[in-house]
Amino acid sequence: MEIEKAFGFVLSNFRNNAQMSQEKLALLSDLDRTYISLLERGKRKPTISTIFSLCRTLNIKPHELILEVEELLKN
Amino acid sequence: MEIEKAFGFVLSNFRNNAQMSQEKLALLSDLDRTYISLLERGKRKPTISTIFSLCRTLNIKPHELILEVEELLKN
Repeated sequence: MEIEKAFGFVLSNFRNNAQMSQEKLALLSDLDRTYISLLERGKRKPTISTIFSLCRTLNIKPHELILEVEELLKN
Repeated sequence: MEIEKAFGFVLSNFRNNAQMSQEKLALLSDLDRTYISLLERGKRKPTISTIFSLCRTLNIKPHELILEVEELLKN
């Protein structure tokens, strides 16, 4: 699996667990809704700043999200 | 501290611990030496792919590096 796809999958999971819409995640992270959608579909590579912003909004630690991405990429 | 600066500081530390030059890290990660220098000085935002490439070369887990960045940003 590609890194972008794994990131998108993990982001989508965390967002759904937080019961947050793409719109709300985008607004609270100062990003576009379209960009969240592209990220979740593995069509964009987030920068470290974007990762930290999204995690702050979702109230998770960036290293926890990255660990999930690593685990997915192992398979 | 900015995220980019924190990342650069942590990357530089891990590279030095691995006793690897910027040139060698660049070559093995398929990146430019100049780009490594810019990253270490906090002048560029790495993407998730760049982070994973650098960590593979340095033989560290991406979430370990990200955790160090988080710790620095707490201060």
